[in-house]
Amino acid sequence: MSSPTYSLTIRATIPAQVGMLGQVMAAISGTGALVGGVDLVRSTKDSVTRDMAVLVRDEAHGEEVREAVAHVPGVVVEGVADRVILAHAGGKMGMRNRVPVATRDDLSMAYTPGVARVCMAIHEDREKAWEYTIKGNSVMVVSDGSSVVGQGDLGPLAALPAMEAKCMFLRELAGIDAFPLPVTVRDPERIAHVVELCASPFAGVHLTDIAAPQCFELSRALAPRLDVPVFQDDQWGTAVALLAGLINGLEIAGTRLANARVVVAGLGPGGMATVRILVAAGVGEVVAVDSKGAVHAGRTDLTEDDRWVAEHTNRERRTGTAPELLKGAHAFIGLSTPNLLTADDVRTMAPDPIVFALAMPEPELAPAAAAEVARVYATGRPDIPNQINSAVAFPGIWRGALDARATRIDEAMALAAAGAIAETAAEDSGLGPDNVVPSVLNPRLVPNVARAVRAAAESSGAARVVQHT
Amino acid sequence: MSSPTYSLTIRATIPAQVGMLGQVMAAISGTGALVGGVDLVRSTKDSVTRDMAVLVRDEAHGEEVREAVAHVPGVVVEGVADRVILAHAGGKMGMRNRVPVATRDDLSMAYTPGVARVCMAIHEDREKAWEYTIKGNSVMVVSDGSSVVGQGDLGPLAALPAMEAKCMFLRELAGIDAFPLPVTVRDPERIAHVVELCASPFAGVHLTDIAAPQCFELSRALAPRLDVPVFQDDQWGTAVALLAGLINGLEIAGTRLANARVVVAGLGPGGMATVRILVAAGVGEVVAVDSKGAVHAGRTDLTEDDRWVAEHTNRERRTGTAPELLKGAHAFIGLSTPNLLTADDVRTMAPDPIVFALAMPEPELAPAAAAEVARVYATGRPDIPNQINSAVAFPGIWRGALDARATRIDEAMALAAAGAIAETAAEDSGLGPDNVVPSVLNPRLVPNVARAVRAAAESSGAARVVQHT
Repeated sequence: MSSPTYSLTIRATIPAQVGMLGQVMAAISGTGALVGGVDLVRSTKDSVTRDMAVLVRDEAHGEEVREAVAHVPGVVVEGVADRVILAHAGGKMGMRNRVPVATRDDLSMAYTPGVARVCMAIHEDREKAWEYTIKGNSVMVVSDGSSVVGQGDLGPLAALPAMEAKCMFLRELAGIDAFPLPVTVRDPERIAHVVELCASPFAGVHLTDIAAPQCFELSRALAPRLDVPVFQDDQWGTAVALLAGLINGLEIAGTRLANARVVVAGLGPGGMATVRILVAAGVGEVVAVDSKGAVHAGRTDLTEDDRWVAEHTNRERRTGTAPELLKGAHAFIGLSTPNLLTADDVRTMAPDPIVFALAMPEPELAPAAAAEVARVYATGRPDIPNQINSAVAFPGIWRGALDARATRIDEAMALAAAGAIAETAAEDSGLGPDNVVPSVLNPRLVPNVARAVRAAAESSGAARVVQHT
Repeated sequence: MSSPTYSLTIRATIPAQVGMLGQVMAAISGTGALVGGVDLVRSTKDSVTRDMAVLVRDEAHGEEVREAVAHVPGVVVEGVADRVILAHAGGKMGMRNRVPVATRDDLSMAYTPGVARVCMAIHEDREKAWEYTIKGNSVMVVSDGSSVVGQGDLGPLAALPAMEAKCMFLRELAGIDAFPLPVTVRDPERIAHVVELCASPFAGVHLTDIAAPQCFELSRALAPRLDVPVFQDDQWGTAVALLAGLINGLEIAGTRLANARVVVAGLGPGGMATVRILVAAGVGEVVAVDSKGAVHAGRTDLTEDDRWVAEHTNRERRTGTAPELLKGAHAFIGLSTPNLLTADDVRTMAPDPIVFALAMPEPELAPAAAAEVARVYATGRPDIPNQINSAVAFPGIWRGALDARATRIDEAMALAAAGAIAETAAEDSGLGPDNVVPSVLNPRLVPNVARAVRAAAESSGAARVVQHT
């Protein structure tokens, strides 16, 4: 498979003869690469220079494509640019001014002497900061870089491109101004301390790419110190997206949430939050599995978080591995390890089985096997239908939280978000096994989720301001 | 004087009769307010609705203007809006994306899977962060809110509007992406600790609105821990602007820098840095004065910073107050207290005396007195020619520092900046006593300063990258 991880632009000058472009295309395809698009750069009577966007597997494959193009008689390769690297040149985001700085009058209003009056107003009433500063629309995106986009511990600075992407989504999809702050410290207590001391200009803190179990400790340490929400994206963003997909998957399978049996494999950040949200959503029975097998109250090797899971799931104290526990289950949710399941394992599930296989870089159940046995199949991969990604959830959740000036993002808000995401997928192009979650880019998604989250915040008491109706 | 601190927009509906608008204007002028501009909102056959921008002294004066307008027969005041507050609604800045988030292909490049490769590249070579992330063009603006735009200790959150203004200047004037981070801690060592732990995505740290002596300690504590510049705006921004003005003032007075005697009153952040930069610039003799009189090596009440001043200035160990020390001096630079000087004090100075009176809210020498006796007079006020403001200096200094990927902003760079600022004023509209510093908005200012600062950084060894020539 050619993943868009490597997306090259090859610039080549091609003789102006009938059939030459076709030969170049054939040369590219012959290497197994995919042509994404062709643009004209310039044309003379003898030759045509074109930019061709090409998707390749990796660097070596890109080199192979370049050579294949260069070997077409008369063709000159003028350059190969890496589109992913180009998209990152200079950083993916920056600042913009919302009021002009063009005249002396502008300076007098935005800065001294005018600004002094605004500063005094906030000094006298801190709440005014929500109106007169960036605070009302700002989110701080924080990471220690200990678990970066499936690549493991890369360190805080290397997490920055992924953090910038989260900020871009918030800007583009939800109109939120988010700034990335990688912190060069690892102890959760110390991260909480740093974040606490610079959180004042933000309406919320978005934690991302932080490894377990530190991420759990950090949430616990930080949330009580702030009067704005602390949202663990890898936990709750993922869990909300999964619940949304499950709601639609069970709808397709004709099973009610309250009657469903769901096996969750993996109790890292995403798995732990998924178990919690499934329990909160009223799923009939949840059984969680870690590397030692089913989690149940009889086990003696459990962490504090695991014990919560043991107390709230697996009432029948089942034991065994994930494949063993699948028998009769309606859904499997994997946030564990590649290729945990076979098609035969899935055949033991209830009819119309749902398999959400989010392990990276390969899912728990391979796509080919899933095609044989699963009624609904979802992964974290962008090249397979039903990509389960926290980006489906967090922009709308934050928009709703900020609109309510929420003090927290609680379970009621998370459940409301999942419901709105599920409904958006259904209204989008009709519910179907390849459409259990909407596209991140669906223009109705964020407004729908934000509305539901804001209403939930008003009901739960998390809202500082209540909407005029 | 009507200061633009209070700039109101009055919307009024005025009978469509000849002379009515004139009556309204007269009513406004009659209160001592100044009409800044008049706009048409809508017009019918009977009446015309207009927005009038009006500069008033304060809230009570604004109310007086409203009543005066309402008393004009037939005129209805529809509303009064505070333009300064309006300019701050929702904050003065936000984020912008530099690459699109509109298609699946965009998502694949900006986020997973594409971003993983960029993260890995930075993990393998940290220097790549300068190219592939916001780091190369980002400045962190930090304050503890202990000394906010002349209003004293307002706290970190209330400093935010002033900090946003600094960020806006950097964006608009220098193309730099700066983000404001008020820190909710006061101990310089702890501020340094917090800043150190979240400085990784920034190419520099801009300290502002921090009281002395903590600001000195903070610079000392922080600079050695970072490999990017730490710039104290209230110190060095002000000092550079003052030196630029002094260079031009002495040019007008016909005195060489090396022969000049300069009295500096006030040894807060700005005064201390001013003494240092004057010494570095080779000013003939500097005498510093604090609230106890002239600083000299014989005094026993000096801080560590004061002792540096005593060792490098006042070779003749003069004693006395600022007015006493003025005798024969070429220039006075005040960063002290209002109305420290009288016209008679200035009459004792050398011919063509230069008086820079930056005390707030009133200068050391009143404008009326200065008009009688000073050859060159400058203040911090925007309504008098020669406003000395750090905003003349810091955008260009940062642009130069970032272009060089500087590790520090050193004395050589500060001196180069002052020279470039002085030259820009002279080339602007010819050197003159009312034009010793250029306008913050002069479009040649930042490029001129940046070029000089970058060159100085290359010479001094502060530059990480050297310009291709």
